[in-house]
Order: sequence, then structure tokens, then C-alpha cells
Amino acid sequence: MKNFSIRIKVRYCETDQMGLVHHGSYVNYFEEARIAWISNLGLSYSEMEKSGIILPVSKLNVSYLKPAHFDDNLVVNVELDEIPTSRLIFNYTIKNNDEVVVTGNTVLAFLNKETNKPVRCPDYMLEKVTPLFS
Amino acid sequence: MKNFSIRIKVRYCETDQMGLVHHGSYVNYFEEARIAWISNLGLSYSEMEKSGIILPVSKLNVSYLKPAHFDDNLVVNVELDEIPTSRLIFNYTIKNNDEVVVTGNTVLAFLNKETNKPVRCPDYMLEKVTPLFS
Amino acid sequence: MKNFSIRIKVRYCETDQMGLVHHGSYVNYFEEARIAWISNLGLSYSEMEKSGIILPVSKLNVSYLKPAHFDDNLVVNVELDEIPTSRLIFNYTIKNNDEVVVTGNTVLAFLNKETNKPVRCPDYMLEKVTPLFS
Amino acid sequence: MKNFSIRIKVRYCETDQMGLVHHGSYVNYFEEARIAWISNLGLSYSEMEKSGIILPVSKLNVSYLKPAHFDDNLVVNVELDEIPTSRLIFNYTIKNNDEVVVTGNTVLAFLNKETNKPVRCPDYMLEKVTPLFS
Repeated sequence: MKNFSIRIKVRYCETDQMGLVHHGSYVNYFEEARIAWISNLGLSYSEMEKSGIILPVSKLNVSYLKPAHFDDNLVVNVELDEIPTSRLIFNYTIKNNDEVVVTGNTVLAFLNKETNKPVRCPDYMLEKVTPLFS
Repeated sequence: MKNFSIRIKVRYCETDQMGLVHHGSYVNYFEEARIAWISNLGLSYSEMEKSGIILPVSKLNVSYLKPAHFDDNLVVNVELDEIPTSRLIFNYTIKNNDEVVVTGNTVLAFLNKETNKPVRCPDYMLEKVTPLFS
Repeated sequence: MKNFSIRIKVRYCETDQMGLVHHGSYVNYFEEARIAWISNLGLSYSEMEKSGIILPVSKLNVSYLKPAHFDDNLVVNVELDEIPTSRLIFNYTIKNNDEVVVTGNTVLAFLNKETNKPVRCPDYMLEKVTPLFS
Repeated sequence: MKNFSIRIKVRYCETDQMGLVHHGSYVNYFEEARIAWISNLGLSYSEMEKSGIILPVSKLNVSYLKPAHFDDNLVVNVELDEIPTSRLIFNYTIKNNDEVVVTGNTVLAFLNKETNKPVRCPDYMLEKVTPLFS
């Protein structure tokens, strides 16, 4: 599926003195969701790193629509935006009780771990992903 | 000054297993820079919160151009984008040895702490900020 | 039950450049476990805070026996040590594939939120907890 | 010097909804202090890692005596406890306006990065450290 959702319960340490979830915490929720998406596809982010490809974030956009709070049960939806080239683009929607609280997107770059040069999306991922867009 | 810079030395806990600064860490560097900017203006973020106004982030954009590493000495420049209304917009440039590694911007919303409704930028801040744009 | 376990999957952001889970991350796992313990008892940490009692940590001890890694599925066991007075003492054991990787304990203090003075464990918690020790 | 101090200004993201510095934040302050101590000795933690020795934490103890708050200027003092063997033991005292707010200690283990086996403190560190105890 292009779409995948995970549940995240807000941790106490993820709040700040405003009494809300700190805006930086959602960045980590996005990360957890896209790693789960990769895993759900039958692939392993860890294995990809061991094979010499890293996937650093090159762009991050977040819109904070509503606050969330400690102990809230969030649903983080991640969707692959397009067939990956040397970039992997995801869109995110975070809901709290069916209300959208945060949206965002990230661009990740496939890089050779040794040279730090861009590489194309590995074939084993393309094989899994391409059918999702047909 | 519309512009203000702080120095941040990358902490060990801010790295990840890629051996780079985790992308989420820069979000906290932006935050530290804008709070220092407010402080440099002769105002106090703490006092503003105590007076009943909170400033949550409503939009965040980050472009990651180059990696940074543990123990790097980063210079985080923050610039006020426009005269604040009910929003406060900042642009950021992070340099590592004179090379730009990350850029970004944030939109913050002035909110009444009790009602969570938007309010206008307080007069004591406008008085300090308006002359910077003339 | 005096004992309660939760599962935590290690997040990417919780690793450091050693390639291991950063030692500070376990402090947050302990916190998540004890809040789940309170919840499992039929109580709510949030409600307790709203009623004017806070529970800051006054002592923390951690022994790191084995490293854990990104994506590991940890089981965090938390056990109440004694009938609470003005303190709440928990012991923790974190296992990774049935192997103990981290142990620890924390002492929390019941404080009045306004005065910051110690208070006794609230009766509604004592009623739930006391039978566990008989 | 066996003793070394750094200044840390509390970041907003290091607070929690109690309105205090989150107890986990101090673990990172300790880390920053001991790395600065190594640096002040004329050594580099980064170089040591590149040479194949890692220094994971094996024990951590923290006593929280007083709360600290956002924007506080903390002084983190770190002291080497004894001549290192295969372990490096530090004691910490954190002050806020000359008042001790947190104390603690950590035991770090010198490990071979490849084998994860304990190794002795490298000679270049012993040469620097031994005179401090005479």
C-alpha cells in the first residue's frame, strides 16, 4: 500500500512547558511512520543501511494545525508521493480522535554511505513500490 | 537587529547511527536561536509566557544541504522576516566553518494561553521590532 | 499487579553515532513504563496532575548491561517496590529477546504543584496499591 | 585539572509539562560536561572513537535536589573520580545560581569498537590523567 498508519501514544518527555506536545516531537513521529512503512513493504531499513545505502532527510515541511497533549493516542498516516528516483518523498497526516492535528512531508535522498553521493533507489525497493502506482 | 547569531556545539546525543547530526536536532537549534533573538531585543520569552501569551510553532520548513557532525561548532543565524502581526516569522541559516549546512523558516502564532485564540503581537514587542524595518 | 510490562520498539532518533541506543533513551522508556503501570492500575497520571499533584523524579539509577540497537523490540518491565508513602519507588528490567540489557530504579516524590512541598500518596492510589502487597 | 565546569543554558525543548527541566535532560548535560573535560585535557573524544575505542555508559546515578527551569544558566561541574583502568568514573554537580540542583555520577567502559570487549584506558589518556592524582 502507498498508505500506512501507525499508532503513537504521546510520551511525557515529548511535552514542553506550554503543556503541549513539543513541535520537534512530530519530526520523530514522521520518522517512525516511514520506517514502519518500509517494514510493512517487506523491506528493512536496517538492512538497507548495512548494504551501504543511507537515507538522510533533505527537506522537511510541517504544518501544525491543532495542539496534541500527553497521553493522546495519535494515528500517523504516511503515504508515498511518487515512484522513487534518487529521492523518496512521503506525505504525512497525524490525527487525534479523527481530527487532523499535523500534516507534513519529507524528501529523503538515497546516498552511498561511503562516498555520500546520490544513488538511485535500489531495485529491490522499486520492485515493491512500482506496482503501487499502476 | 533583524539578524542575530548564536553558536551551538553539537552534542553527542544529537547524533544518530548514520554518524551525522539527526535532522530533528536542527529544529531545537532554530528554537534556541529565536529565543536568543528575543532576549537580544531586551525581551524575555519566559516573561511573555507568564503574561499569558504563548507562541507555538504553526509552520516549519527545513532544507538540509550538507551533513554536520558531533562536536562541530555551528553558527545559527536567525532573521525576523517581517513586522509581526499575529504571527512571528523567522528565517534561519546554519553554517559550519562558513559553509551553509541547513536553512529553514518557522511561523509562530501569538496565542492567548487560556483561550488558545490568536492575539496580536504585544505592543512592547512591536515597539522594539518596528524600527528595525524602517 | 505490582509488575507490568510494555513493549517499546527502538526509534531511529534514539540511536547515537556509536550505532547503539543512546543511554539517555532508556530514561524515557522507564518513564513510559511507569505511566503505563499507573494506567493499568485504573488511574490516570494526567488526572493526578490536574488535581494538583506532580510526581518529579528525585533519584535515578541505571545499569547498562548489554547494548540495544535500532528497531529492537524491547520489553520494559516495571515493578512497584513498596507501598508508597510520600515517595513512589519503581524497579525496572529491560529485556531484548529474553536477555536483560538494562536494569534500574527511580524514586519519585509526590509534590503539591503550587507549593512544591511533599504530600502523601493520594488515597485513591493507596486503595489500589495496598492490596498488591498483602 | 580533575575538575572542569561548563555553562549550559536550559533550552525550551528540555522542559516538560510540569514546567521544569525534564529529568532526562540532565543526562545529556552530564555527557556534554565529560566530553568538554576530555577536550580540556587536550584530547578528542572524536579522535578516540576513530581510533577504534568507544566509551559507552555502564552505570548512571542521578539525584535531583531542586528543580531547574527554562532559560536557567546552569554550571555543570565534572570531576574525574580515580585514575582510569578499563573504566572512567566521573562525578557531577550542577548548580543554578550557586545552589546545587543535581548531583550524579557515571561509569564509562573503554571498549574495542569491533569486538565490544573491554580494553584498558589508552596510554595517551593515562599520561595526561595520572599526574592529576599525584
